[in-house]
Amino acid sequence: MRRVGIIGIGITEFGELWDSSFRKIGISAGLAAVEDANISAEHIDALYVGNMSAGRFIRQEHVGALIADYSGLAKGHIPATRVEAAGASGGLALRQGFLAVASGMNDIVVVGGAEKMTDVSDVESSLIQSSAADQEWETELGVTFAGLHSLIATRHMHEYGTTREQLADVAVKNHRHGSLNPKAQFRREISRDVVLKSPMVSSPLRMFDCAPSSDGAAAVVLCPFEMAGKHAEMPIEIVGSGQASDSLALHHRRDICTMDATRLAAKRAFKMAGLRQKDVSVAEVHDNFTISEILAIEDLGFFSKGEGGKATEDGRTALEGDVAVNSSGGLKARGDPIGATGVAQAVEIVTQLRGKADERQVKDASVGLTQNVGGTGATVVVHLFRREM
Amino acid sequence: MRRVGIIGIGITEFGELWDSSFRKIGISAGLAAVEDANISAEHIDALYVGNMSAGRFIRQEHVGALIADYSGLAKGHIPATRVEAAGASGGLALRQGFLAVASGMNDIVVVGGAEKMTDVSDVESSLIQSSAADQEWETELGVTFAGLHSLIATRHMHEYGTTREQLADVAVKNHRHGSLNPKAQFRREISRDVVLKSPMVSSPLRMFDCAPSSDGAAAVVLCPFEMAGKHAEMPIEIVGSGQASDSLALHHRRDICTMDATRLAAKRAFKMAGLRQKDVSVAEVHDNFTISEILAIEDLGFFSKGEGGKATEDGRTALEGDVAVNSSGGLKARGDPIGATGVAQAVEIVTQLRGKADERQVKDASVGLTQNVGGTGATVVVHLFRREM
Repeated sequence: MRRVGIIGIGITEFGELWDSSFRKIGISAGLAAVEDANISAEHIDALYVGNMSAGRFIRQEHVGALIADYSGLAKGHIPATRVEAAGASGGLALRQGFLAVASGMNDIVVVGGAEKMTDVSDVESSLIQSSAADQEWETELGVTFAGLHSLIATRHMHEYGTTREQLADVAVKNHRHGSLNPKAQFRREISRDVVLKSPMVSSPLRMFDCAPSSDGAAAVVLCPFEMAGKHAEMPIEIVGSGQASDSLALHHRRDICTMDATRLAAKRAFKMAGLRQKDVSVAEVHDNFTISEILAIEDLGFFSKGEGGKATEDGRTALEGDVAVNSSGGLKARGDPIGATGVAQAVEIVTQLRGKADERQVKDASVGLTQNVGGTGATVVVHLFRREM
Repeated sequence: MRRVGIIGIGITEFGELWDSSFRKIGISAGLAAVEDANISAEHIDALYVGNMSAGRFIRQEHVGALIADYSGLAKGHIPATRVEAAGASGGLALRQGFLAVASGMNDIVVVGGAEKMTDVSDVESSLIQSSAADQEWETELGVTFAGLHSLIATRHMHEYGTTREQLADVAVKNHRHGSLNPKAQFRREISRDVVLKSPMVSSPLRMFDCAPSSDGAAAVVLCPFEMAGKHAEMPIEIVGSGQASDSLALHHRRDICTMDATRLAAKRAFKMAGLRQKDVSVAEVHDNFTISEILAIEDLGFFSKGEGGKATEDGRTALEGDVAVNSSGGLKARGDPIGATGVAQAVEIVTQLRGKADERQVKDASVGLTQNVGGTGATVVVHLFRREM
């Protein structure tokens, strides 16, 4: 397989973008990435788009072709492919783009992710998000997506003594990071108290434990690493890619406090990269709920099982900690336009490794990681990125 | 890139399978393919699933993980990825599986396609199918998917003198082929007269010009060609893979009587394979409407533009013709469970190249082609398959 580099990144503002359409945000992120890569449309060989549920959010399937069309790429008749695995759609699109370049099939590939969630009612949006879980054995029986995560949180607190306050600390940290990110949906710091007094969603998870519904899009441009120097001042290499699955329904898992798919995806990515956890200075993980970040930092191997809450409380995952987790603000504060999220994670890591993250820059960041989750952990994709020394 | 072979195929019956669920048919096709390949679950490295709109047909996204789970593959935590491009979803899944093996990332990959269409009302089904077209510029303005194809048909008749009877001949031929296929949804021959007197759907297209709504699933097992001999008596090689896009909306096309995406995808696939049109003895093309097959056989280069109707009338696309088109019965008679269709096409070609197509066997078939279309031609995937001499 060929080595693969990222030569361009682009991202829209995340939030309730009521004056923008799906196609508008998709194109806008793509054009920004293409401009950043110093290429023009005729250089592009293929497009991958991560999207969870445009069919239900905007009544449009076939969004790979849609984005190719409205960004002008269909004039070159390039292959355009949508990839979906609920919340992991963006990370999966990145992996397919990686494969397209690594295989030698394509040279320059644009990977985008987009979701327009706020044009339907909150109830409809919640229903759509629940379609990431097992429709027959979970959703139809009444459990919401937040409800499933509250089961995980309750069990984790019981097994490991994780506290309600530690969950809150994830949100507090990510809001602090988000306040430093001009593209974030929420740019205000919050206190523990704000989280603990926010409305209950599904006990023990409160409003500030949950990532918002968001509109937004993100894109990256890939090419063979040996060509990357021609296009980018500081190309970032994708050195590891791991993907794993697990049972769709939570109750079929070996242990609901561990995402085995995260463990396996990470193991595969680290093996491919020849790197270890201690090499990683910055990580974007899938904090759709505060408990999800605690599971993530444990299952990725940054901290032992059961110590994620304490590590967060102790500031070990803050910008200046052992590993900076969700420097962008994460899904919690940067926002979570589902299909865009996995690609937005890569955009943040590239920004950090380029040393261009301004106020939220992690010092001497040279290796970064993304962890992108579909459902309650039925799909996980982990990527590792490295700056040339 | 490594050479890629097909070592197993599986397919369900196509039709109104009211007593089966999406997961049941998906698993059933997959298990049949795995059994045919003489492998067991622990050999499988990855799964790709083609599906257009489970989110709307059965309220379930994340169907890659679903199929991995319920077929027992999630126990091995293998990567499971859903790919979507409306009607071309199955063909795209095949292409991604091909890439995964060709790149060296995976050895044994299962590619499945599935759709469960008949659990919603016909009106809802029609709406969902229309989401393959441009929601903002076509569907919202009232045109149906059949309506868009009737525009193509009318123009083709005007430009090239294609007759209403020649359109009917596509359906008559494909029903004849379908009558020889035990897995086909429609297994009865029909006459020209039956087509010409069937209810009008969108002038000039009548009921028998349209493929049905179907439930069904299909699967193939891929591996590096050099390993294929260990698993299959007669491995079939995927020698060419081409994909192309075009504008999503029909009115933006250069010429609505030509699918440029078919021309480009075919050009790319033939170039990769080092083959020419005259080498192909059997082709499965995307006859979701009778006019679609006429465009396909022209744009693939089997016949000159405008001569597709005449060629069909003259029997040149029948089992014993210049090139046997849709020996399975095609979408028209075998059925069209959207996401399954592209994979079902590959299943038919492998069956033919193995010489196992019984009554519908094409004599001395050694090279086969599939053409799978999304929307009205915004996505087209073409694959070429060859039997070792």
